[in-house]
Amino acid sequence: MNWPKSVTIKEVGPRDGLQNEKLILSTADKIEWINQLSFTGLSYLEVTSFVHPKWIPQLADAVEVARNIKKNPLVTYAALVPNMKGLEKAIACSVDEVSVFMSASETHNKQNINKTISETFPVLQEVIAEAIAEGKTVRGYISTVFGCPYEGEVDYNQVLNICEKLFTMGISEISLGDTIGVASPRQVENFLIQALKLYQPQSLAMHFHDTRGMALANIVKALDYGITTFDSSLGGLGGCPYAPGASGNVATDDLVYMFDKMLIHTGVNQEALVDSALFVQEKLNKTLPSHRMAMYSDSKG
Amino acid sequence: MNWPKSVTIKEVGPRDGLQNEKLILSTADKIEWINQLSFTGLSYLEVTSFVHPKWIPQLADAVEVARNIKKNPLVTYAALVPNMKGLEKAIACSVDEVSVFMSASETHNKQNINKTISETFPVLQEVIAEAIAEGKTVRGYISTVFGCPYEGEVDYNQVLNICEKLFTMGISEISLGDTIGVASPRQVENFLIQALKLYQPQSLAMHFHDTRGMALANIVKALDYGITTFDSSLGGLGGCPYAPGASGNVATDDLVYMFDKMLIHTGVNQEALVDSALFVQEKLNKTLPSHRMAMYSDSKG
Repeated sequence: MNWPKSVTIKEVGPRDGLQNEKLILSTADKIEWINQLSFTGLSYLEVTSFVHPKWIPQLADAVEVARNIKKNPLVTYAALVPNMKGLEKAIACSVDEVSVFMSASETHNKQNINKTISETFPVLQEVIAEAIAEGKTVRGYISTVFGCPYEGEVDYNQVLNICEKLFTMGISEISLGDTIGVASPRQVENFLIQALKLYQPQSLAMHFHDTRGMALANIVKALDYGITTFDSSLGGLGGCPYAPGASGNVATDDLVYMFDKMLIHTGVNQEALVDSALFVQEKLNKTLPSHRMAMYSDSKG
Repeated sequence: MNWPKSVTIKEVGPRDGLQNEKLILSTADKIEWINQLSFTGLSYLEVTSFVHPKWIPQLADAVEVARNIKKNPLVTYAALVPNMKGLEKAIACSVDEVSVFMSASETHNKQNINKTISETFPVLQEVIAEAIAEGKTVRGYISTVFGCPYEGEVDYNQVLNICEKLFTMGISEISLGDTIGVASPRQVENFLIQALKLYQPQSLAMHFHDTRGMALANIVKALDYGITTFDSSLGGLGGCPYAPGASGNVATDDLVYMFDKMLIHTGVNQEALVDSALFVQEKLNKTLPSHRMAMYSDSKG
């Protein structure tokens, strides 16, 4: 297989991970953790979300976190923004990139954003235009690409239509989310065959949750098709809001281990990652679900 | 990808799973569990191991188990045998197939069998010849194919030499074991490119442990190369003797879920599998590590 020589891992643990944890980290601990992550070799950190604290109380301190982290010039710092209000805060905090989000399925979009898909576009259009005017790049998340908890399988044409609209608005990269972790390698392949007729693999990122354990298999299948950007959370933080004890995002530490063994460059230092996982694990007072951390706790007795 | 339309899953939970569990199931529970497994649609069950109880006390009741299970004529019942003594017992218990085993790395072979690799061949030759004379088919396990806990990476030529010797002795299928769960999809691909120059994919099975979470990714990569036989343990039973809390064999229930989603026929009924996993989980008094069982326990609150 003619795999890419290197990949980019986008660490979403401080946002997608923490927003699905019951225990809320202190602002100081978040800052300390993000500062540690900044020196693991990860080149991209999504550090928080500027959504209303009523929806995501875990990230209510987004402004303090984004303002007080020590930035490593080699790292891109990103934050999620749902609307103009969120964007204004993100700009005031000098993040490098903002992410907007919507779902591929109507019911999930309605549940998550309280708007229909067509009502969502104008909101995103305004945010994207303003962000670009402010010199920011914009990433777009599409959720429920491979399955919706309410509607089941999602029509790929619907996903590709959303991609087209978002790219036209000026998005630089779309992250395709398997929000509930049901994608199989066949779905990934079938989707990418269609998507890569329209877009370069460099403009697409894959965002897998490991609910059914298939995330690494799906990542390798995406890699077979030339995709080089993958989202993950350190230690597999986060869980699944639709199945409280199930796995969250694919674990950064397991992903880096696999890429290292596949001789695909990530730039990430495994030992620094584990140290950083141990830190957040202690603060969250739980054993993180990644295989790497299970190995670690075993080796310590 | 031109994947096979159907695959064979060989359930090794009653042997490879249980032999690595601390708690020893009662003979009656083992028999009840195997009887349940016989009606899940699985076509192959490795029910026990006729090794000396000093080495594997968990399977000390191999004869009682093998004699007292109710056989489904649609299922092949197999057992592991280390030597002639084990073979005699297996034949007396009327198993359909026997499995022999050795390691691809000298140190692991020595630790596991107390013989060098070259000392192991004559023992296996005698067992294989006698089993065939008795009308049994013989399966061969090779351990540490993708990495040894003592020696690190293993030379593929060494593995292929062992394959050649075992096939020449009359083995019908070789199961290539990633005993410590370190194989990456690249290793699987590199190995299979060499192996499939020599052997048909139907004569090779893959046996992955999920220690690092890569088992499903490796299975999909093997499937890309036409491999259609995979070993697994229900619920991911078993763990890793070199890392006590880490995952065991890849979980049959996760594997069947993935194949179903890939539209690849297994013949296995997911609900019957889960019932059977719940039974053994209760008897072992532990939550099985598969993703499917985590989903199940969540959905029950």
